[in-house]
Amino acid sequence: MSDQSPLLVVTAHPGDFVWRAGGAIALAVSRGQRAVIACLSFGERGESAAAWRAGKSLDEIKQIRRDEGQTAADALGAEVHFFDAGDYPLRESDELMERLIALYREVQPAVVLTHGERDPYNMDHPKAGEIALAARVLAQAPGVVGVGDVIGAPPVFAFEPHQPEVCGFIPDVLLDITSVWDTKVAAMDALVAQAHLVPYYTDLGKRRGVQAERNSGPNLGLPKDTRAEAFQRFYPQVTQELD
Amino acid sequence: MSDQSPLLVVTAHPGDFVWRAGGAIALAVSRGQRAVIACLSFGERGESAAAWRAGKSLDEIKQIRRDEGQTAADALGAEVHFFDAGDYPLRESDELMERLIALYREVQPAVVLTHGERDPYNMDHPKAGEIALAARVLAQAPGVVGVGDVIGAPPVFAFEPHQPEVCGFIPDVLLDITSVWDTKVAAMDALVAQAHLVPYYTDLGKRRGVQAERNSGPNLGLPKDTRAEAFQRFYPQVTQELD
Amino acid sequence: MSDQSPLLVVTAHPGDFVWRAGGAIALAVSRGQRAVIACLSFGERGESAAAWRAGKSLDEIKQIRRDEGQTAADALGAEVHFFDAGDYPLRESDELMERLIALYREVQPAVVLTHGERDPYNMDHPKAGEIALAARVLAQAPGVVGVGDVIGAPPVFAFEPHQPEVCGFIPDVLLDITSVWDTKVAAMDALVAQAHLVPYYTDLGKRRGVQAERNSGPNLGLPKDTRAEAFQRFYPQVTQELD
Amino acid sequence: MSDQSPLLVVTAHPGDFVWRAGGAIALAVSRGQRAVIACLSFGERGESAAAWRAGKSLDEIKQIRRDEGQTAADALGAEVHFFDAGDYPLRESDELMERLIALYREVQPAVVLTHGERDPYNMDHPKAGEIALAARVLAQAPGVVGVGDVIGAPPVFAFEPHQPEVCGFIPDVLLDITSVWDTKVAAMDALVAQAHLVPYYTDLGKRRGVQAERNSGPNLGLPKDTRAEAFQRFYPQVTQELD
Amino acid sequence: MSDQSPLLVVTAHPGDFVWRAGGAIALAVSRGQRAVIACLSFGERGESAAAWRAGKSLDEIKQIRRDEGQTAADALGAEVHFFDAGDYPLRESDELMERLIALYREVQPAVVLTHGERDPYNMDHPKAGEIALAARVLAQAPGVVGVGDVIGAPPVFAFEPHQPEVCGFIPDVLLDITSVWDTKVAAMDALVAQAHLVPYYTDLGKRRGVQAERNSGPNLGLPKDTRAEAFQRFYPQVTQELD
Amino acid sequence: MSDQSPLLVVTAHPGDFVWRAGGAIALAVSRGQRAVIACLSFGERGESAAAWRAGKSLDEIKQIRRDEGQTAADALGAEVHFFDAGDYPLRESDELMERLIALYREVQPAVVLTHGERDPYNMDHPKAGEIALAARVLAQAPGVVGVGDVIGAPPVFAFEPHQPEVCGFIPDVLLDITSVWDTKVAAMDALVAQAHLVPYYTDLGKRRGVQAERNSGPNLGLPKDTRAEAFQRFYPQVTQELD
Repeated sequence: MSDQSPLLVVTAHPGDFVWRAGGAIALAVSRGQRAVIACLSFGERGESAAAWRAGKSLDEIKQIRRDEGQTAADALGAEVHFFDAGDYPLRESDELMERLIALYREVQPAVVLTHGERDPYNMDHPKAGEIALAARVLAQAPGVVGVGDVIGAPPVFAFEPHQPEVCGFIPDVLLDITSVWDTKVAAMDALVAQAHLVPYYTDLGKRRGVQAERNSGPNLGLPKDTRAEAFQRFYPQVTQELD
Repeated sequence: MSDQSPLLVVTAHPGDFVWRAGGAIALAVSRGQRAVIACLSFGERGESAAAWRAGKSLDEIKQIRRDEGQTAADALGAEVHFFDAGDYPLRESDELMERLIALYREVQPAVVLTHGERDPYNMDHPKAGEIALAARVLAQAPGVVGVGDVIGAPPVFAFEPHQPEVCGFIPDVLLDITSVWDTKVAAMDALVAQAHLVPYYTDLGKRRGVQAERNSGPNLGLPKDTRAEAFQRFYPQVTQELD
Repeated sequence: MSDQSPLLVVTAHPGDFVWRAGGAIALAVSRGQRAVIACLSFGERGESAAAWRAGKSLDEIKQIRRDEGQTAADALGAEVHFFDAGDYPLRESDELMERLIALYREVQPAVVLTHGERDPYNMDHPKAGEIALAARVLAQAPGVVGVGDVIGAPPVFAFEPHQPEVCGFIPDVLLDITSVWDTKVAAMDALVAQAHLVPYYTDLGKRRGVQAERNSGPNLGLPKDTRAEAFQRFYPQVTQELD
Repeated sequence: MSDQSPLLVVTAHPGDFVWRAGGAIALAVSRGQRAVIACLSFGERGESAAAWRAGKSLDEIKQIRRDEGQTAADALGAEVHFFDAGDYPLRESDELMERLIALYREVQPAVVLTHGERDPYNMDHPKAGEIALAARVLAQAPGVVGVGDVIGAPPVFAFEPHQPEVCGFIPDVLLDITSVWDTKVAAMDALVAQAHLVPYYTDLGKRRGVQAERNSGPNLGLPKDTRAEAFQRFYPQVTQELD
Repeated sequence: MSDQSPLLVVTAHPGDFVWRAGGAIALAVSRGQRAVIACLSFGERGESAAAWRAGKSLDEIKQIRRDEGQTAADALGAEVHFFDAGDYPLRESDELMERLIALYREVQPAVVLTHGERDPYNMDHPKAGEIALAARVLAQAPGVVGVGDVIGAPPVFAFEPHQPEVCGFIPDVLLDITSVWDTKVAAMDALVAQAHLVPYYTDLGKRRGVQAERNSGPNLGLPKDTRAEAFQRFYPQVTQELD
Repeated sequence: MSDQSPLLVVTAHPGDFVWRAGGAIALAVSRGQRAVIACLSFGERGESAAAWRAGKSLDEIKQIRRDEGQTAADALGAEVHFFDAGDYPLRESDELMERLIALYREVQPAVVLTHGERDPYNMDHPKAGEIALAARVLAQAPGVVGVGDVIGAPPVFAFEPHQPEVCGFIPDVLLDITSVWDTKVAAMDALVAQAHLVPYYTDLGKRRGVQAERNSGPNLGLPKDTRAEAFQRFYPQVTQELD
């Protein structure tokens, strides 16, 4: 990947880009790539139970989540665009699609990360993934009018959901994020409202790291204490070398 | 992949390494990698109908197929080891396993290619794949006594069977072999006894090439007239970069 | 399950809760549990062909189906709520979701039964299941405003569709309903407009019963003439004992 | 499950019954059930790399692994039978089957635990599972001559492999083992030769515990810091109550 | 199939009925069957990149595509109904459903062909298939008011998408179209705007033909140079003879 | 299918060809086709529990089962060949394969029926299916020496196992056997030792019949009280007409 290849991450909520893709984002940034996050909602209704129980208003909650998301994105070195499209349920709309298509065309991503097709614990996750995939296809067509040039066919990866097996997530890519692990930890620490998840995703980083070690061939030869994130491809890998 | 990373290809018959992996082999050779083929049988009973109908003896048929396989391997620039383990049915034996484990340890492959798990048209194909996978695991263990050092955990790819859908083959890797396409054609032309398959696999190379173009992102950006081979991974990809 | 654990059943049509879950409902009632049925439509267009052919009006047909459904629910000892949300097609609406979320919160179900994800013979079935699952998730969130307390995470079971294999229904739970079989038969007999289905589902009760016998271990040891209903879990079973 | 219901665990190696089923075993023992382990090999070739590198002999290695296995079984409160059937590869033989059938008939298990059908990292695992399932079916038949009475149809559970996704393991049962967690830790600590795996399986116990909390309905209502093991059923669950 | 059995083909775009079902249509026509195509959009935004780049207006593009589609349908001997329902995205609407239900009832199809359930390269394809299936079910119900008599339960086949494996397309029917191959070629040649696809689908016809030869039993015994199209059934085949 | 097209049925036990394929066999015979059954074992150990409990000897049991199987085959109008290859476990041997290949070549089947790939209740069932498929492929090869001419590529169908869902059996063909239902009943009545299964398979014939009615299009239009058997194809259907 050339150093300037942009990365586009489309998520339902602020937490998702940290827990599920924070390593991938930090790694891209560390290589000099531009990293852009489209965060479709604040998770203001579905992922903010403590704030509601504490009596916060909807606007307060959205501001809290926006602030946390911005801090985490800053920690990762990424731009974040908050679409404020609502949650529980997140719904597709013409306006949302137009804005997302415009972002695709402005960013011209070389790689796209988003949610997988199934999550029976939170229907906004697969809906965000569906929106991301549809917008990518629409952004490829000259017949879909809007600002910016049409895009190519960047590969798309689903990141790991909270309960992978129930969501039909079967990792086919293990990404070594050891070199940026501290950055991911810093970004996780920014998500104060969901602090209870930090140990869970710290353990997951180790667990996927052990699997990466076990599956790395002689060429890569990952050492002990590797940290990794898992992904699943939507399209076949195209390559000029088997490894 | 470093230039010296050896490639090991384990096939049931001489044709398989040409039709299904000839491009991958030629590509590795073109990069200076060592390419070694373990050809478990000559396909003397199951894939030599014309020769039997022409009244050839078993030994004659084996010799014909050996010669064709050697010529094809030479065209690709690969070493070929004929195991002569019999076909229809190909059977696992202690001796076969020991020889194959020894070859794994001698070659120290960085990548392994073999048959997938299912082929209801020829049961020797999945049996060869099963043998290849088992030998790879046994070759990793210091407790399995034999010459040579234990191996690491090279990634393994299934190559494409003749009727992919019925065999449950779903490509997840498309390998651009355009730069060595002429070499693959030369190797196919060496398989005189199966000349009727040349147009079929020529068309397949084009078809997979079109799919590679369509799925290649902006970074790779494959041009028209790409030629490709399709593969399916047995283990997750481990990488330090998403693309 | 404690004796007061409420059961919530969400169906597209009046027949569904009888044919597919009548035994489960009667069994819960026989244990002193509250059983509540949310019947989203009357099947007035899609499951009332004979009435249309007989020249009945839409209102008459809805009344006939409501009466039959009420009689069947009474026979089972369950409450039934008719949502009258329309069929062919059944559509999700804000109002329907609000009413269903409110019902979830009022009932506080310990177990939920609904339709599975696929039914190419009647698209209203999977739509009803989708609505049931979405409402359950929304009812868990304090941020989704409405009457009543949020609910926990009750397990959800899909009941058996009319043509299970084509619908991708693979039973993973066989429920022994022998003790309430007569009650289920009485409820089936209430569905006069679909009387032709009674023998079909009587046979199915026997068939699933034989399978329950065959799969019951030494501890349960079901006898001959067991009657059973089949279900498929949406989420993993959580238990303190393997059996 | 009645208090005397025996549990039979069939594993390829000593470690398997600890890492994958130690909680289930300790839980059964804590309830007064008999727990019996059939350990088919010592993993002397395939899972003892350090000992081979340290220059131990085959007999020494087998003794070390036997001792560790015995200590772990003692810690769990279970009987262990070492079959010494060889590994890498583990092979089915008439003698092995007869001994295992006899054990089934002597134990009369109410529940059986073993390996799942697929493990491309160690072919002895699925082979052990295949042997366990075949012996169970043979032990049911009066026509299969041997000591002891025929058995019934105990449910069978696959325990969790080291890399679950690659092995096609999709958990459908999460077993709460919090009450015996310390016992499982003690048994893990007995496996000195594989001490590097203790943190990995400690984390896994936590991870599956979090998932058990999330999926436990109002009736069970598991608290924080639950520890769990994951299993996958081979046959449908038969029950008299949905929960 | 009786000679007058009508065939109904529901496609998203003009090209689809040619590339994917042109042989099936021509074959039906050659037997005296009526063949009717419901073409839901012109592909004016999503499949007309060259025209947009050439500066054509939306109306011009629609006219060009309509003309090509009409010419192709004429070449096949089929009626074509252009629904002009819009593309990128194609959306379900009450009006579209009513018109399509009316067409089902007017045609009384004996066989239906449409798109399969998945296509991550063009979401209008699966949407068109979903619309076709839903309209078929609605057209069966007397309670769905509209002109014409209700229909029976014609079998439905998915035709082959451009990248079958990524779309989950696994052919279970190979249709011998050798006798009408020239007609299909003529129809393909009518699609001037997509001329680059002609060689691709010519090769596909050969490839599926070779597979048809290989899978045809002694009764059918297809000769060399068979041309075929692949399909996948949505419902089980019902037959009075196994072959 | 021409009237003389032979049918070959390969089963593990005498009951299988009656319960699972009796209708298909009787239907073929009623059309003047030759029907040949290869019955690999008598089910003397695994499917004769009552006889063992009654104290019969092995030879007596084999004779009882042979007599029942012969009577049932006579009722169906089919030839039956008893291979007496042993059961629990049924094992592949060179001699068994040679005899079965010779039978394939003598019969020259136009259609083959056998067991599917999975049955966790009786491992001899999938083993018989595996043997049938392997022998079919070997019988096609001139290089596999033996009496008779090589065969073509007859389609193969798996018949329905006792517990279809647990065996992964998803019917894709429903065969109308109404016209020969009485013949199937007569054959079932010949299986005195398994009389308890007659009602189960009578109900199954009705159930599959209802499904055949529901899935039969306007051309076939099956009436009420259809009786059917379900099958699953191993290879794609090849046809000259979609219906």
